[in-house]
Amino acid sequence: MSAPLYIALLHYPVHDKNRKLVATAVTNVDVHDIGRLAATYGLPGYFVVTPVEQQRALVHEMLGHWLTGEGAAYNPRRKQALELARVVANLADAVDAVREATGRVPVTIGTSAGPRDGMVSYPEMRRLLDAWDGPAILALGTGWGLEKQFQQSLDYHLAPIPGLADYNHLSVRSAAAIMVDRLLGREYSAGER
Amino acid sequence: MSAPLYIALLHYPVHDKNRKLVATAVTNVDVHDIGRLAATYGLPGYFVVTPVEQQRALVHEMLGHWLTGEGAAYNPRRKQALELARVVANLADAVDAVREATGRVPVTIGTSAGPRDGMVSYPEMRRLLDAWDGPAILALGTGWGLEKQFQQSLDYHLAPIPGLADYNHLSVRSAAAIMVDRLLGREYSAGER
Repeated sequence: MSAPLYIALLHYPVHDKNRKLVATAVTNVDVHDIGRLAATYGLPGYFVVTPVEQQRALVHEMLGHWLTGEGAAYNPRRKQALELARVVANLADAVDAVREATGRVPVTIGTSAGPRDGMVSYPEMRRLLDAWDGPAILALGTGWGLEKQFQQSLDYHLAPIPGLADYNHLSVRSAAAIMVDRLLGREYSAGER
Repeated sequence: MSAPLYIALLHYPVHDKNRKLVATAVTNVDVHDIGRLAATYGLPGYFVVTPVEQQRALVHEMLGHWLTGEGAAYNPRRKQALELARVVANLADAVDAVREATGRVPVTIGTSAGPRDGMVSYPEMRRLLDAWDGPAILALGTGWGLEKQFQQSLDYHLAPIPGLADYNHLSVRSAAAIMVDRLLGREYSAGER
């Protein structure tokens, strides 16, 4: 794999369980788990995306605890993971940040728990990322998923992780882990640590 | 896939970050996320394993909220996931429960973030489960992982999910999600919901 893959965890524009358009609150465990996932799979970074200034301030405060506060001394491993986090207001800001870091405009990849027209399978997306050889952003929605119009503004859309007919409700943390493993995962080879 | 796969989330015997043998506290988000994972992938159940009676009581109280209390009305989807949880004192009790439910003694599969002698790759374990065609329990340790002697008492041991050389610290929630997807996951096929 050659394309640097970033994750964007979006708290807007997403649906709530009644299909209303909302901005969800940031969940600390998402920020931790996705940071640990990013560090384990060698991602260059991930974005916590919310237009709510107060929410961004809260995330910065939490990150400060682990990056420079008591938490950094208590658990340096967690610091390594959370150093990969960036807090931005919207996906366009994440795209800008990736362009500045890599010198190229990233492709954006949407995700959802249900099917979409023109969606791309995991093996196919893995091939596309290899061929593209540039940066990409995997966009995940919190709450009950990314708003439809917004989804259509993205370059690609991944096929859902299939669940049972009457239940397909992974946490966004679990979905992120499975998606990154499907796109970048490999088997352990003898001799590595 | 034919073998019914159960998950056991062990809070003892595990190591803490100083390699001390401890019983960790149950983390509610683990119980939720693994329940949602189990429901999405069609697992018959999962076990929250702790020898600490007070911890088991706390988990029962939390489950009660979502299964029969306010939570059941607020989010019936969460009820569907948490209905799959069983709270037991040790892995032997989980093995007994599976034997009673299925009429067969399950094979036990250990996991860790580092390599072990005789470990089995994911594709190989997938084949083994197909051939075995009976129940299996995937045992995951909380904290800093399952105690070594205990690991050796299990029937199989899965190869680690490879991370970077200097970082391999997924949350147990993320690890469970990736492992279940590697053992049971499939691609979405057109036409399914």
